[in-house]
Amino acid sequence: MTDKLRVALIGYGFMGAAHSQAWRTAPRVFDLPKDIEMAVIVGRNEEAVAAAAEKWGWQEAATDWRDVVARDDIDVVDIVTPGHSHDEIAIAALAAGKHVLCEKPLANSVADADRMAEAARASSAIAMLGFTYRRVPALTRARDLIAAGRIGEVRQVRAAYRQDWLVDPAAPLSWRLKKDEAGAGALGDIGGHAVDLVQFLTGQTVEKVAGTIETITKRRPIETERVGIAGRGGDEYGDVTVDDLAIFTGRLSGGALASFEATRFATGRKNQLSVEVSGSEGAIAFDLESLNELHVYDRTADDLDQGFTRVVVTEPGHPYLSGWWPAGHMLGYEHGFSHQVKDLVEAIASGDQPTPTFDEGAQVQRVLDAVETSSADDSRWVAV
Amino acid sequence: MTDKLRVALIGYGFMGAAHSQAWRTAPRVFDLPKDIEMAVIVGRNEEAVAAAAEKWGWQEAATDWRDVVARDDIDVVDIVTPGHSHDEIAIAALAAGKHVLCEKPLANSVADADRMAEAARASSAIAMLGFTYRRVPALTRARDLIAAGRIGEVRQVRAAYRQDWLVDPAAPLSWRLKKDEAGAGALGDIGGHAVDLVQFLTGQTVEKVAGTIETITKRRPIETERVGIAGRGGDEYGDVTVDDLAIFTGRLSGGALASFEATRFATGRKNQLSVEVSGSEGAIAFDLESLNELHVYDRTADDLDQGFTRVVVTEPGHPYLSGWWPAGHMLGYEHGFSHQVKDLVEAIASGDQPTPTFDEGAQVQRVLDAVETSSADDSRWVAV
Amino acid sequence: MTDKLRVALIGYGFMGAAHSQAWRTAPRVFDLPKDIEMAVIVGRNEEAVAAAAEKWGWQEAATDWRDVVARDDIDVVDIVTPGHSHDEIAIAALAAGKHVLCEKPLANSVADADRMAEAARASSAIAMLGFTYRRVPALTRARDLIAAGRIGEVRQVRAAYRQDWLVDPAAPLSWRLKKDEAGAGALGDIGGHAVDLVQFLTGQTVEKVAGTIETITKRRPIETERVGIAGRGGDEYGDVTVDDLAIFTGRLSGGALASFEATRFATGRKNQLSVEVSGSEGAIAFDLESLNELHVYDRTADDLDQGFTRVVVTEPGHPYLSGWWPAGHMLGYEHGFSHQVKDLVEAIASGDQPTPTFDEGAQVQRVLDAVETSSADDSRWVAV
Amino acid sequence: MTDKLRVALIGYGFMGAAHSQAWRTAPRVFDLPKDIEMAVIVGRNEEAVAAAAEKWGWQEAATDWRDVVARDDIDVVDIVTPGHSHDEIAIAALAAGKHVLCEKPLANSVADADRMAEAARASSAIAMLGFTYRRVPALTRARDLIAAGRIGEVRQVRAAYRQDWLVDPAAPLSWRLKKDEAGAGALGDIGGHAVDLVQFLTGQTVEKVAGTIETITKRRPIETERVGIAGRGGDEYGDVTVDDLAIFTGRLSGGALASFEATRFATGRKNQLSVEVSGSEGAIAFDLESLNELHVYDRTADDLDQGFTRVVVTEPGHPYLSGWWPAGHMLGYEHGFSHQVKDLVEAIASGDQPTPTFDEGAQVQRVLDAVETSSADDSRWVAV
Repeated sequence: MTDKLRVALIGYGFMGAAHSQAWRTAPRVFDLPKDIEMAVIVGRNEEAVAAAAEKWGWQEAATDWRDVVARDDIDVVDIVTPGHSHDEIAIAALAAGKHVLCEKPLANSVADADRMAEAARASSAIAMLGFTYRRVPALTRARDLIAAGRIGEVRQVRAAYRQDWLVDPAAPLSWRLKKDEAGAGALGDIGGHAVDLVQFLTGQTVEKVAGTIETITKRRPIETERVGIAGRGGDEYGDVTVDDLAIFTGRLSGGALASFEATRFATGRKNQLSVEVSGSEGAIAFDLESLNELHVYDRTADDLDQGFTRVVVTEPGHPYLSGWWPAGHMLGYEHGFSHQVKDLVEAIASGDQPTPTFDEGAQVQRVLDAVETSSADDSRWVAV
Repeated sequence: MTDKLRVALIGYGFMGAAHSQAWRTAPRVFDLPKDIEMAVIVGRNEEAVAAAAEKWGWQEAATDWRDVVARDDIDVVDIVTPGHSHDEIAIAALAAGKHVLCEKPLANSVADADRMAEAARASSAIAMLGFTYRRVPALTRARDLIAAGRIGEVRQVRAAYRQDWLVDPAAPLSWRLKKDEAGAGALGDIGGHAVDLVQFLTGQTVEKVAGTIETITKRRPIETERVGIAGRGGDEYGDVTVDDLAIFTGRLSGGALASFEATRFATGRKNQLSVEVSGSEGAIAFDLESLNELHVYDRTADDLDQGFTRVVVTEPGHPYLSGWWPAGHMLGYEHGFSHQVKDLVEAIASGDQPTPTFDEGAQVQRVLDAVETSSADDSRWVAV
Repeated sequence: MTDKLRVALIGYGFMGAAHSQAWRTAPRVFDLPKDIEMAVIVGRNEEAVAAAAEKWGWQEAATDWRDVVARDDIDVVDIVTPGHSHDEIAIAALAAGKHVLCEKPLANSVADADRMAEAARASSAIAMLGFTYRRVPALTRARDLIAAGRIGEVRQVRAAYRQDWLVDPAAPLSWRLKKDEAGAGALGDIGGHAVDLVQFLTGQTVEKVAGTIETITKRRPIETERVGIAGRGGDEYGDVTVDDLAIFTGRLSGGALASFEATRFATGRKNQLSVEVSGSEGAIAFDLESLNELHVYDRTADDLDQGFTRVVVTEPGHPYLSGWWPAGHMLGYEHGFSHQVKDLVEAIASGDQPTPTFDEGAQVQRVLDAVETSSADDSRWVAV
Repeated sequence: MTDKLRVALIGYGFMGAAHSQAWRTAPRVFDLPKDIEMAVIVGRNEEAVAAAAEKWGWQEAATDWRDVVARDDIDVVDIVTPGHSHDEIAIAALAAGKHVLCEKPLANSVADADRMAEAARASSAIAMLGFTYRRVPALTRARDLIAAGRIGEVRQVRAAYRQDWLVDPAAPLSWRLKKDEAGAGALGDIGGHAVDLVQFLTGQTVEKVAGTIETITKRRPIETERVGIAGRGGDEYGDVTVDDLAIFTGRLSGGALASFEATRFATGRKNQLSVEVSGSEGAIAFDLESLNELHVYDRTADDLDQGFTRVVVTEPGHPYLSGWWPAGHMLGYEHGFSHQVKDLVEAIASGDQPTPTFDEGAQVQRVLDAVETSSADDSRWVAV
């Protein structure tokens, strides 16, 4: 490997745009130890992928990921396809000695995820999973505070990821609503983020779960055109085969209970990931709708001074902020992806495995799988 | 009965202060159909109850509630004792033909609650339960909007009541932490409010539940002095016999799922009752920390104009506001108690049973009971 | 004087209701050193004042304040009439040896205010002015923090009092819009609150001002019925003779600049008094729409931890909170009036002059007068 | 001119980074009518500008802007140097037939600004000024709503731009604090944004002003190292020759008053640009700390439903959102710069002059100049 990393992006949907933005931006913001070349983007539709290459600045377009993964001039394979294809691509890429960045969820089944994790462990290449919210500076900062003991012992956790794009009965039956392609619904798509985030923030794992998933709207118009994440449908209807609401409770390895909600039916909430960690000495609270803010409570302060402090996480010393703008200049959604590229490139340069690992991804899949099992078994506690 | 209502208050703790305030205030704010006389306050400690009478403006103090309940010159019995004594007092009062206002929880057991509800049904007197949050104007308004169809069909609900006074390990073992006196812990005390509120707002009942309760801190210093709601403890320790955290899911009669949390371990949240009802056409959101505000989402508005509207519920036409201050002048916690007195007195005058009834209170107890059953049975779904 | 204070209330409008509430409530919440008797309420309309006495719980109604002020059995005269009558009543009451509580503004002219202040200084009775916002616990707390040096040296101040009840062109020409009765408009009514609050918080005086006042809507329907603060109007129109918007800058005695706005045209803002004091070591921010919250910034904290801390000012140790509810139970608008009664009664018992004094009230009038002068003189700086 | 635009960036400070980001990003997000080539970046320090070229992705670095401006292969000159050099560069570029994007302020003096505006009018090239906040989607949306009459007639306006980086007495004497380089201080730097924004939102101009500027900290350590916007200083001190606080009032062409504040002493406010426009039928409110949100008040709604609606301005139909992420995915500070590039490139393609023009920039300078005149003349009203 040279000082240059040549990247192949497999997939070109919404996540393709976000990852392209990150590969393009990170080297211009941070001092990366290696140069980045956006070498090739891969998709099955030749015309569409060529347009994506042109639009997003990839040197080439290709239609067969197997060819690309085997190429000598590719160092990094970045996978942003639907979940059901992650295992095959990632395992092939790792086998070919490529570094892999895989968008979440790691896979659509625990079995697939485990095989991927095994492949990652067996490889000397870097394998990293794309739970980018870990790299929202306010959340990285929250993790740092908790790890430093600033809120004491974790006593309880509350996490929710709430969207509303399925409230509309006309929202069509896209791939995200089909179990064979998406793996799971709200649970797998956004519930996975919530689980990962709680585990990341607390440094603990979810050891057992009890909960319920359900599909509120069971039939929808079959998608005739893909537009944005929702698309458009026609007159024919099909069955929604994934959940659109999941409510569950988890027991953390440290003993605390965590409540989780993942929903696409929270009317008015477009993309609200919120989390609160309550500890013996303090608490932290975060809401993705105000993604530059971290609210920190210090129970050791004088009674008359206690309150949640709204920290605007844009100081030069805050995580990832050194590369950006002066204090008080807000970051947005896509910055987490640039931070992910930064950490991945630094990991490749140093050879130190970054987080989240594929093992962590497989563990999240086991948590989600246990939720499905619990839901099917009268909501009983199920060990992860 | 004359045009005058002579009231006896049984109990003189924190709720005694709140109810006294309400009996004193409501007639001065609203045009009540009957005059109120704060006749007698009852407590076991002669000196303390005499002081309370003097402080809060009751004409007399007494130590035996049985005597008072039997007196001909008493029209209304208002019960603010701990939950385990509610049934005996309320049933005796109803038997004596008195109107009864009973602070929540209705009783400490479903059996007691059912006997109270039966007594209430058998009586021609008015029996009313004290879930005062129904009478926070913003919540009454929310109920009105939902009943009028403004948010369409209820799709999911999220309710939490979060306090933090038990995070301190020095918080003593007060009566609120003993099962024989308090009946239940966070679940019964504040979880009951959340359940009642969800049922009130949606007009639906919780038909089955699945959940977990637990006691995070299991031993505490035995209380040596009662101060405020928390008190002070000494060197000896005893067992906490109630839960301090409850997380559960309920299935509403209309089919929607509702998530509930009741906690005394939410570090930094002093008294945060929050609820969000998501519907097919809109949503409402409320937080008791901003009790004059109701957030209303209208999904039928133009896409570009949609958002949660922060309605400051202090307009003259808003519920209960006619008697208070001009628009924009905030109400506080205790106003709900005055609204409760208003509605009770009007009900006594009209003879129309007000809500919440004892039947509703018994039903809430059944929901809470089912949560305890579920928790003990591996968190399985339990019918209410 | 006995251990009992017999109070006469002169006036029975909106402020009459608020003051009655306070006289009724304060003795029930706080341990006052003297008993309160709500002796007599005075108004020119015999029927209306009798109804007010009945409604609010005054022992008697009377129509001639001169008689009442002269009575031997009256200890305290509480004045809530329009501003133009304050001087005559207050001076007579002080001359008769009564303690006086006078609602703001102290008077409609500096000359009147000065005579009142002189009368207060000459009397051995207590004279107190009713700027009740000083007694919102969050603001009292803010003053304490600033006085203790917690924000360092005051560098700049920003204060605004914003209402919107005149945006409606149909809002009638009530007494509040007539210079001879109200003295001034937004400037005098709510701008006075802002000036007093800034002086109270900083412990400094406004020494010179420059600004502009104006009347946005110059003619309105003559009021035919008084309802709430706005009333209803008919077909005839008259001239608005007071300002409805005032914007001005003040130089504080400590050297800092303070910006002020008082408006009745801030569409959507019902009663928003906001203030922010920026200091060399920190800042405080407050908004009356969230009156239980004080936002405190500590610039001496670690850079990465700095932020505004939202303190919910309901802890038992916070100002005035000892008498109220447990932590987290919100207070409302009227509580400031009860706190005012508490402080007045304690001052009468101790003989120590409470604040705000009539001198302070006269000084506020001089500030407002200087703003009018500045506005008429091309907005130039005018010494107070 | 071909279908390709070759851009030269003159300057490489904080704004250089922001503009580079925009030139790199806009073509990847939007469908621009012309291709962009980041041709050359220009700075006086050869080493530093070479590093900037490498870092930000410019094809070449150069040290003499005169040479670059004269080159045939340059189509667009983007000027991000300190204000005192804008006139010379822009006029030369326009004379050479280049399109010009000039960062605000247009110039450090009205005379310079007027010459630039004249040059722009005389040229057939496009000249655009960089008030990027106009292109924050929430603010563009606000302008659209106001232009469509949604808030009726503008009655009053309140705008403030508040930072705190000068509260620290150790903040050094950087070029931003020297009148000869920066032109003005808080007034010119951030007050100009506030003036432009008010004029943009209302479609009106500020016709006269009255106000005060001042320098709170008059001497600071001379800068020895430039780091971020603040830098580091040594032991020697020099005079601050610009203001750090400006408070002024403006009369809009439509008759309404607008209050303005620009400060670098608002402790705890890192970069808070807030504006509220109050109209006869509604209002809009915005705060840059929540830059994806627009708060809209509709006074024509039912009284009981009125409130500020928090619109998250991330819907596909909102201004500039078509190119970005799904609804609810937040944008940040730098996106406004990409939107600026989009509009500039479209304007170049169509030949239609975009806003803000140099004439608008010169007019803002006249407003700021009038504020300085007013401040020096006892705060009197001064015509713009």
